[in-house]
This record gives sequence, C-alpha cells and structure tokens, in this order.
Amino acid sequence: MPLQRPKGTQDHLPDGSPKLSRDIQASAFAHVQDVARRVLERSGASFIATPLFEEAELVKRGVGGSTDIVRKEMFTVYYFGDHGGYVLRPEGTASIVRAYLQNGLKQLPAPLKLWTHGPMFRAENVQKLRLRQFHQVDYEVLGSTDPLVDAEAIWLMWEVVRELGLTGVRVKLGSIGDPEDRERYNAYLRGLFGAHADRLSDDSKDRLERNPMRILDSKSAGDQALLAELGVKPMLDFLGEDARAHFGAVQAYLREWGVPFDLDPSIVRGLDYYRRTAWELHHEGIGAKSALGGGGRYDGLAEQLGGAAVPGIGWAFGIERVLGALEAEGVAFAQVDGPLLYLAAMDEANVGLAARLALAGRSHGRVEFAYRAMKPGSVFREADRRRARHAAVIGSDEAARGVLNIKNLGTGETREVPVADLNAFLDDLSQQARGTREQA
Amino acid sequence: MPLQRPKGTQDHLPDGSPKLSRDIQASAFAHVQDVARRVLERSGASFIATPLFEEAELVKRGVGGSTDIVRKEMFTVYYFGDHGGYVLRPEGTASIVRAYLQNGLKQLPAPLKLWTHGPMFRAENVQKLRLRQFHQVDYEVLGSTDPLVDAEAIWLMWEVVRELGLTGVRVKLGSIGDPEDRERYNAYLRGLFGAHADRLSDDSKDRLERNPMRILDSKSAGDQALLAELGVKPMLDFLGEDARAHFGAVQAYLREWGVPFDLDPSIVRGLDYYRRTAWELHHEGIGAKSALGGGGRYDGLAEQLGGAAVPGIGWAFGIERVLGALEAEGVAFAQVDGPLLYLAAMDEANVGLAARLALAGRSHGRVEFAYRAMKPGSVFREADRRRARHAAVIGSDEAARGVLNIKNLGTGETREVPVADLNAFLDDLSQQARGTREQA
Repeated sequence: MPLQRPKGTQDHLPDGSPKLSRDIQASAFAHVQDVARRVLERSGASFIATPLFEEAELVKRGVGGSTDIVRKEMFTVYYFGDHGGYVLRPEGTASIVRAYLQNGLKQLPAPLKLWTHGPMFRAENVQKLRLRQFHQVDYEVLGSTDPLVDAEAIWLMWEVVRELGLTGVRVKLGSIGDPEDRERYNAYLRGLFGAHADRLSDDSKDRLERNPMRILDSKSAGDQALLAELGVKPMLDFLGEDARAHFGAVQAYLREWGVPFDLDPSIVRGLDYYRRTAWELHHEGIGAKSALGGGGRYDGLAEQLGGAAVPGIGWAFGIERVLGALEAEGVAFAQVDGPLLYLAAMDEANVGLAARLALAGRSHGRVEFAYRAMKPGSVFREADRRRARHAAVIGSDEAARGVLNIKNLGTGETREVPVADLNAFLDDLSQQARGTREQA
Repeated sequence: MPLQRPKGTQDHLPDGSPKLSRDIQASAFAHVQDVARRVLERSGASFIATPLFEEAELVKRGVGGSTDIVRKEMFTVYYFGDHGGYVLRPEGTASIVRAYLQNGLKQLPAPLKLWTHGPMFRAENVQKLRLRQFHQVDYEVLGSTDPLVDAEAIWLMWEVVRELGLTGVRVKLGSIGDPEDRERYNAYLRGLFGAHADRLSDDSKDRLERNPMRILDSKSAGDQALLAELGVKPMLDFLGEDARAHFGAVQAYLREWGVPFDLDPSIVRGLDYYRRTAWELHHEGIGAKSALGGGGRYDGLAEQLGGAAVPGIGWAFGIERVLGALEAEGVAFAQVDGPLLYLAAMDEANVGLAARLALAGRSHGRVEFAYRAMKPGSVFREADRRRARHAAVIGSDEAARGVLNIKNLGTGETREVPVADLNAFLDDLSQQARGTREQA
C-alpha cells in the first residue's frame, strides 16, 4: 500500500476525482474563498497572511492557557537544535493582532479591516467535520469600539453565507459585557454554584474559583442538569449601562439591514480580553452542536500580547463546515470549465503542429492537445472526457492546406477554420464563455 | 515589546503598510499566484492541495534520507500522546504523488496535469530570500514519459515568469539519463576520484561510495578545485541512446517555441528516482547561486512511495525569489483598487443612512463609509487616504431631499445623484473600472 496522509487531514482534489466523498473538491473550496474575497474586499478589507507556526506563548496568551486547545490539542514544532517553542496555529486572531502590532499597521486608515483564509491545526479526536488540519475564513477589524463596526462584521459574515446560497443559517447573538459586568456575574455564579459544589464535575469545580462563567459551557451532563435545575440568570441581565447601550445599537443596525438573529444568553467567552458582542452561526445540516463559526469583540487582546491597547472585533468560519452545510442543503457547485478546444493529430508528423497551435491559442483561454497521434474516434471520446467545447483532428490534408476542421461538441456542427484565423476563433469562444458565466 | 513572529517567517501585509521592505506585499504575492493560475489552468492543469504536514517517512523517501533537507532542516511535529512521526512538508512533489496514488487519480484523463501553491518549511540558516516558511508554485504531470510533456512543462514555467514581466531569466537545461546511464557515469567518477580520495572533503569521501555524482554538487572549495583540475566529463556524455533521443526531442520543441535555454552539464540530481530531463531557472538579480526554481522528471518516485509505477515530471519556483527578481528588475505592481465611493455623514443622525447606502452599493463594487460623523474637509482627506474615486458627504439637507452630492476625486467635479439612482451610478463606475483594468 502506498504511504497515506496523516489522520484528520484531507486532500483537495480535481473535479471528477474518484474518492471525492472522503476529501474536498478543490473547486468547491475555491468557490467559498472567492465569494468571501468578493464580499470582504468590497467592504474595504485588505488581505493579510501570517506564518502557520508561531511562538507557543502567543497562542497561550491569545487562546488561553487553561483551554483544551492549549492544554491538549496543540501541535508542537521542533527543529534541529531548537527548544521547541513553536506551535502550529490553532486559530487566526492572535496572529493577526500580533502582525498588526509588530508591523505598525496602526498607521493605516482606521478602523482597519483585515481578512485571511488558511489552514488551522488542532490535534482533536477526529470526527466528521472535525479535522486536525482545517481551514478558516477570518475577518478582523482593529481600531474601533463603535457598535456599527460590530453590526457590519456580523452583516459581512451573514452576507458571505447568503451569497454562497445557504438558507438554513441562524445567527445566535449575545453580549458578555465589560470586565466589571463579568465580575458581578462571576460573583453571582460563585454564590449560586458554591452551595452545590459537590455536584459539579471536577473540571467545573476547578472553574468555580478561576472562571465560573466557563461552567455554563461545560460538556458534562451532570453540570448541565444542575444548570437547568438552578435556573441560572443569563449574563445579559448583568450588563452595565454602556455595554447595554452598545448591544442595543448592534441589534438595531441588524434589524435595519434585515439580518435575522436570535438572542442567545448561553453564548459566553472564557477569556478575559473578550468584551461585549459575541455571536455564532449555526446550521442544522451539520448538527446542532457544531457552529459554522463565530465571532466576538476582543478589546483587551492587543495588550495581552504585549502591545498598546487597540480595540478589535472579528469572526471566523470553518470552510469544511460551510461545505458540509452546502452539501446538506443540496447546493450544487459549478465545475471548472473544460477547454475551449482539444487538438489532436492523426499522425506523429503533425503532433508538433497540434502542440504549437495549442500553445499559441492559450493567450485566449484553455486549450489542450494530445501528446501522441490518435484515431479520429478516440479524439472525440477524449475531448468529451475532458468536457472540451470543440475538438479538431489534424490530418496531413489539413496540415498541407493550413486549415482546421473544428467540431462543436455541443451541436455536432463542423466548420473549417484557417490556421491563421484560429486565434480570432478562440477569442470569440472565450468572450462567449465569459458572457455565459456573467449571466449565470 | 509585543510578541514577534518566528525567525525566518514573514507576514503578508496590505498595500501601504509601513514596514513592507521586511515583509511581503500581499497584493504582489497574490499577483504571482494569479498569473501562475491563469497560465497553468489554460494548459489544462487542475488545482490540488495536500496537508501541510505529512508522515516523516514520505519526506524521507521523497527527498532522500541523506540530504541536508532531511538530516538537518526538518520541522518535526508532535502532539499530545503522539510518537512524533510527522514533519512539515519541505517541498510539494512527494505529497502530490502520494495524493495521486492514495486517491486513485489514475482514473482521470492522462497525462494528468496538477498544480498547487502554498507554504513549504525548512529550518535553514536564515538569509535574504532563504526563509524557514517560504512559498512555492508547483506544477506536476503524471502518466507520460513523452518528451513533449517535458518541453511543455518547461514552456509553462517560462511562460509564468515571462507573463510576470521578468526578462533576466535563464533556463539551464540538462539530462541525467536513465538509471543504467548513471551507473556507467558513477563507475567513471569512482575511478576518477578514487585516485584522489585523500583530497576530497569528508562529505565527499562519503559520497564516493554511495553516490559519486553528488560530489559534483559539493559546496567545498577544495572539492571544486579538484573537479576543475581533473576536467571531469559531464553526465551528458554518458547518456544512452533512448535518453539521448528523448533529450534531443525536448530541445527541438523548446527551440521551435522560442524558449531560450543553455545546456548545463553541471545539473545533477542526487536521488535514484530522477530520470532524464532536469532544469533550473536562474536570475542574476537574486544572486548567481540561488535558482528561482527548478524541475525534473521523476519516473521512479511513485514506486519509491509504495505505489504502482507512474512516470512523472514537475517543477516548482519560490514565490519570494520571484518577487525578489521582480524587485531587482524594478517591475512595479498595481496596487489593490481603492473604493468606488466613500460615504460619510456630517451628523450622527445620518451615520446609519451612510452605512445603509454603502452596504446596498456593495453588490456593485467596493464602497466604504465613515463610522462616525465627520466634517466635510476631513471626509475628502480620508477618502484620499483610502484612494477612493468618489466621495459623498451626507448632511441633513441631502438626507431630507433624498440626494447625494458625489465628488469625483480625480476631476474635482461634483454631481447630484438621487439616492434611488445610486446603484445605477455605482454600476456604471464599476463597469468603467473593469474596462480600464482590461485595457491595462
């Protein structure tokens, strides 16, 4: 058996590959990236990319040293003679804020909108749509606390999935307030759970001291039963005046722009640097427990990374999860266009002529040719397999007369085109193809 | 000081970022990818992507266990509870051949042309254009030994750098023959060097037994002096009849298509699975010792990876090196287009209107807006900073009348556009912009 790829990773394969169900169709993946690019760049966002490995300390500060991601799911990177201080990035936000600080991006017009897409790495237990190398589209805005920035961020995320054709998406929206609001809420939770500490899971006993809000996130059935029994008040009831006004403004914009959302008091964020707006995008097609993605405001992160204070907000969604949701909705993707023309020679003497004409024709679009002489019947079969729109077979007669007999594989019509006019012919085909795509 | 990125890595930053000289302009990087995509996809190549980490065994077999890459430059990847059998990929070919075998891509029309771009990782001593995370464009063709496939591969690599505007590129072409040719050559080299073994560097003494051809590649000054003194015959003199005919055909096609090349007898490949055609692309702007990239035929690789025999050929170039060459030639890149329109309100009451108009306008192109009320003078300054083509300031009068005064920032002209006509106005602008780009 040939060597296999690592567990929890996928290949991105050409259209028509035999084992696509286990893998990703590269053209579908590219379509998600392209739609995200169009929506985000029209909003004024600039593309940014950061290295795929970073100092472990960056991830620890950015994601939180007590999270499962840092404690159990890190891929550590070593090299010859190195102490091993690097990890593969598990998410994009910390790196983008690091890049903003390190490269002086504060000098660019504010608020600065940045976006990226790329691989993220978590050594999770592999399940459907839970991979060890997965891919995200990521949008971040640095330099403003304005609720209009929050609302626009959510609108953009909504707009990307809407443009992709997804209909079954729900926005779940919450606010986790300001740090002083959270302190009041944590004090309330400590009081409430303190009386029942013996019924909490071990993890949650731990959280009771350090960060009681994370108990609400617990995956333990016992914890969830206790939560239901106690009738815990939501964080939203503890918002201070400023956070409440900010959250109200975000909601008002979303209503004005027609972005449907549900208030979800269960949305919490375990880390200190998070502030105010937090949301998730859910889709029933991929299971109630997994979100397509989520976002939130993180005004305290830049300082956490050792930089000057810069407010920020951002979101990310998983490309594999969006593809899973699209599949669940039965949304079909256009395949990559086949060649405008497939050229083949009937005898070895003219293979070079077919090649030369194909190479010259490529300034107008995709043109393929056969590397060996072929019988006419095989040429049309081969052209069909490649989904070519036209095919031409060059024999010694055509070569001598300097013409091509070009067959339209859609209509079956054949016409004679002088070799000297081939580029004009291809130019017409390419403009027709472009017109058809723009209408679609 | 904020946390910094790892040594030997770069950020890809927006146009106008203050520290671009140390980093990469994301739009220039994207331009190289886009040109490669256009040239390669028009030739019929399909995009493929493989995971960024692979089994260490794959890289060892694909690159060679005795190479510096495997012995000294591997990034090893560990995770919780894992033995550490993964590495970050140092190059793309082994992974693509692995994906071809694992996913049954033999069923697709042959020869199968694949291309990819993405990050590669080598823990090298960091120098200018020698990074620990660098990026390659990579093209591979599986399923044919035809010299026409070799010539087209070289033509495509040449075409990408030509379309990018590079003029100072030299193709250095060689052939390393078939395995039996190399055995004859190695026997000759053993005889020649055997008499002078005491003058060889330690590394080359080692190579004398295992793989004498690699002595020709030695970086030791003493070895190079000995080579010059002995007047070593080139590999090309040892080609068998088949390899010689194949190499002749490759050269004939390149001459016919006008791809200039120099025969370079010094091009050797140290690994057993390489066959016949091998080449490098050089550019004086990045120093005589570093190639932009190179390629070669590797008919023995698939079997080496445990699969069925499949002939293959491919090339890769370093995107950072190509950007270095473009910079050395002074080739300028177009910046990302600024917004068609920048909208701002003079009072807080109309900020929401500016936002709503901007969001609706984005179905036509890039439209930005101010998140806070601004004075008219600041609006035009801010619009200029963002390189907007038009700007509009919304006051209470305009809001009441349902019109916008839109200023063309190129000509200085202002015209009144009813809010109801804004989308038609933006549609015109966007079509003009597209026309200008297509002419360029």
